Amino acid sequence: MADRLTIFDTTLRDGEQSPGISLDAGEKLEIAEQLARLGVDVIEAGFPVASEGDFEAVKAIAAAVHGPVICGLSRPHLSDVDRCWEAVRAAERARIHVFISTSPNHMEHMLKMTPEQVLAATRSGVARAREHTDDVEFSPQDATRTPLDFMIEVLQVAVEAGATTLNIPDTVGYGIPWDFGALIQYVRREVKGDYVTSTHCHNDLGLATANSLAGVQAGARQVEVCVNGLGERAGNAALEEVVMAIRTRPDQFPGVEVGVRTEELARTSRMVARLTGYPIQYNKAVVGRNAFSHESGIHQHGVLADRSTYEIIDADTVGSTGSQIVLGKHSGRHAFSNALKELGITVHGDTLDAAFRRFKELADRKVQLTDADLEAIVAEELGTHVGDGFELESLEVRGGTVGTPAATVVVLRGGEKLEATEEGDGMIDAACRAIKEATGVEGRLVEFNVSSVTGGVDALGDVVVQVEADGVRVSGRGLSTDVVEASARAYLSAVNRLLRVRDRAEERRAVEATP
Amino acid sequence: MADRLTIFDTTLRDGEQSPGISLDAGEKLEIAEQLARLGVDVIEAGFPVASEGDFEAVKAIAAAVHGPVICGLSRPHLSDVDRCWEAVRAAERARIHVFISTSPNHMEHMLKMTPEQVLAATRSGVARAREHTDDVEFSPQDATRTPLDFMIEVLQVAVEAGATTLNIPDTVGYGIPWDFGALIQYVRREVKGDYVTSTHCHNDLGLATANSLAGVQAGARQVEVCVNGLGERAGNAALEEVVMAIRTRPDQFPGVEVGVRTEELARTSRMVARLTGYPIQYNKAVVGRNAFSHESGIHQHGVLADRSTYEIIDADTVGSTGSQIVLGKHSGRHAFSNALKELGITVHGDTLDAAFRRFKELADRKVQLTDADLEAIVAEELGTHVGDGFELESLEVRGGTVGTPAATVVVLRGGEKLEATEEGDGMIDAACRAIKEATGVEGRLVEFNVSSVTGGVDALGDVVVQVEADGVRVSGRGLSTDVVEASARAYLSAVNRLLRVRDRAEERRAVEATP
Repeated sequence: MADRLTIFDTTLRDGEQSPGISLDAGEKLEIAEQLARLGVDVIEAGFPVASEGDFEAVKAIAAAVHGPVICGLSRPHLSDVDRCWEAVRAAERARIHVFISTSPNHMEHMLKMTPEQVLAATRSGVARAREHTDDVEFSPQDATRTPLDFMIEVLQVAVEAGATTLNIPDTVGYGIPWDFGALIQYVRREVKGDYVTSTHCHNDLGLATANSLAGVQAGARQVEVCVNGLGERAGNAALEEVVMAIRTRPDQFPGVEVGVRTEELARTSRMVARLTGYPIQYNKAVVGRNAFSHESGIHQHGVLADRSTYEIIDADTVGSTGSQIVLGKHSGRHAFSNALKELGITVHGDTLDAAFRRFKELADRKVQLTDADLEAIVAEELGTHVGDGFELESLEVRGGTVGTPAATVVVLRGGEKLEATEEGDGMIDAACRAIKEATGVEGRLVEFNVSSVTGGVDALGDVVVQVEADGVRVSGRGLSTDVVEASARAYLSAVNRLLRVRDRAEERRAVEATP
Repeated sequence: MADRLTIFDTTLRDGEQSPGISLDAGEKLEIAEQLARLGVDVIEAGFPVASEGDFEAVKAIAAAVHGPVICGLSRPHLSDVDRCWEAVRAAERARIHVFISTSPNHMEHMLKMTPEQVLAATRSGVARAREHTDDVEFSPQDATRTPLDFMIEVLQVAVEAGATTLNIPDTVGYGIPWDFGALIQYVRREVKGDYVTSTHCHNDLGLATANSLAGVQAGARQVEVCVNGLGERAGNAALEEVVMAIRTRPDQFPGVEVGVRTEELARTSRMVARLTGYPIQYNKAVVGRNAFSHESGIHQHGVLADRSTYEIIDADTVGSTGSQIVLGKHSGRHAFSNALKELGITVHGDTLDAAFRRFKELADRKVQLTDADLEAIVAEELGTHVGDGFELESLEVRGGTVGTPAATVVVLRGGEKLEATEEGDGMIDAACRAIKEATGVEGRLVEFNVSSVTGGVDALGDVVVQVEADGVRVSGRGLSTDVVEASARAYLSAVNRLLRVRDRAEERRAVEATP
């Protein structure tokens, strides 16, 4: 009988902990809905106790997203577990994921707890979770640096207290495939009871995908992964790599079944890249721009003769084929909304109106808008549509090698018009200074990334910035046929977000954690 | 006794086959010199028969770079082998790398040769190479899809003909660590003679690093790698990942010794990213921006208490620490040239003058220039300094949300002044149109990437574009405090390169290949 491998996506929890990523509830919901379309088995939606914002986002996802199990992360404190349950209980199927550090290093330096205290906390936390739901996961954080006998002891306690999934996190990305596989094998042999074994591999040495697969070969039947390999530091195992490795090499994973609709991989990857502001490198496996391109003469010759000479994955399989939908400035609201539906994009409430207005503005300047453009427009609106934020009314810039670059901006807030003119080292600098002056919000531009949504000179420029103020870092996104305008929009969207997350970020700082 | 693992870098051969990468001889030499400083054992400098440009670049590297073995790739044709030897013979130590496809798929669809013909070509090609040098490598291309008995037969023939290294390429990235390791083990057991076994792993499933390490564990003592994991499609095993995995986990590779100076890894990675125009994703292992950053509260708390709680690699070890050198507009030529020397950057001939002029221009507009800025300036000059190319004399642009974006450019060529004014969808578009008009060179902007060299609003914008014309794709690079100016410079540098490589690219298309 085929053996189902549970795909546990933690893009919204571990992925969102990457520096500068700060998704709001609407963006998280959009990603969660795409993950459901992709067909993942479990969505780890957040860490509800970390902040009010995290709590609300998890709650919204639990209520709205159908299909996958919705999971919340929790420390073993009883009040944390109860709070986590509050967030996920509305889901069709809800999971609580309890974790605590078990390595001597972490227990001593971070928790300041004895092994006995850690065992007791594990028992009580898991038991409390089990009172709420019969789907309880437990993780001994920094497992790969925990003495084996103590790890087995903690895991056995967790199973006895009611844990149904045991997750083995390689928190610092220290594992090597064969020793990580051996660790999973050891857990399966030594820990008695009825549970699913899970992997959670970080990529510090570039081995997260391989370690996850070694875990599956050793009997793990859940993998914790992130879209595009996001996550702390070098990130987690990439969902698309783990899934495609198993699909491409079924001979190496006899009987293992993965329920993901791979033709949604490319779109999921693009959506996550846009909303997080984390571009995908050209040579990224499976979802990178080059994954299906061939440069050298002999390779091109080979592929023309027979695709399989140099390709082991069909681009169609992961949804990496050309645009199908083309809209122009004469397309109406109905066509726009239909196109979004065809793309599987569900836009909630006012965002649809705002996205349609932006579509019309952009269609006036660019002849054709493809599905990739539409995805980008929706992504921009999800990021900038803030009830009481600043709006860009107009921008005028001039620059070049001759005079000093200068910009004039007019922004609106609650009917009020604010105008400022500033000079700068470049036109983007000038525009950002003018926005600072007009809004009165200070901030430092720490990262800046532009990519064109589709090829060609008339492509839309998609700008993602990261702005830092008082130790809080947020991202903003802007779209335009002009890069300076897109940058100004991105900066203004970051300013709006800065105002919104500043409190939340400070609250979060005190409690957040991760396996 | 410690066992030396040969680090064989193929950034300049397989890496350079990535779409849009087109390094000239000066850039290749710059990278080769940095690879020598990094301490790799072998540099595969190119595929001499592919084009005159490739031949000249390999020859220049063989003559100038000290330390590593300099290797050239060759098909088994006797004339190809001889030509390859011509290119590498000036090296202190020279290697010829002979390859031929051995999988049924490749033999039938691509080579249109019988297995007997492939065996004969292997024997004669390797023997010819051995007449030139006693350091000869052989690769059966697409080894992982070659029937085992035929692969062993070919390898045995290669050893008998004089091959000293047998490289097993996973050309399509099809391997899984345990089966690739088993393949290496099988080769070592079945092929008789005195040779070093080598891995060449592609990353289509995200497993290139793991497969290379599995090969080492199985007895391979050479790994073929690229800086930043460059290469065809999803690229090759990343040099920095393979090296740091072995250094971080010596317990898993008993006795294996790697001679790389890891503190040069970060700089090597930056240089390759700049010169190739392939940005590094934030969450890239070892060399990504996030590799040593920590977002969540508990992680930050842990790292403050003790670095090892969440870090297994010290940032100093890979050279990822802050800037040391700061120059300003009052810094003279001597200080500039000294700073480059300190950075280990050797700039040849006129490029130093040109780089110094650009330094002064930029220093007038940016208060402080750090070592990262200096690296970027040199990278720009290496890319744009073309004897008879166009030069940007001046640029004036205006744009925003109100009027139509417009640009006026003046370019110089051989004393002649060419001016044009154009409108566009955005200011960059307008600037590119004006350059097209002024230079008379058509081209399509297919990719566009801006990053800031260092943080802050006053950072230098580093723009890399890819421009396509008549099926030839080239990259260009520009640096400025203003993004539109940097883009115009990048576009113009691509135009210059387009003129230069068009012929070469067509010549190359006919013969190029790769294991």
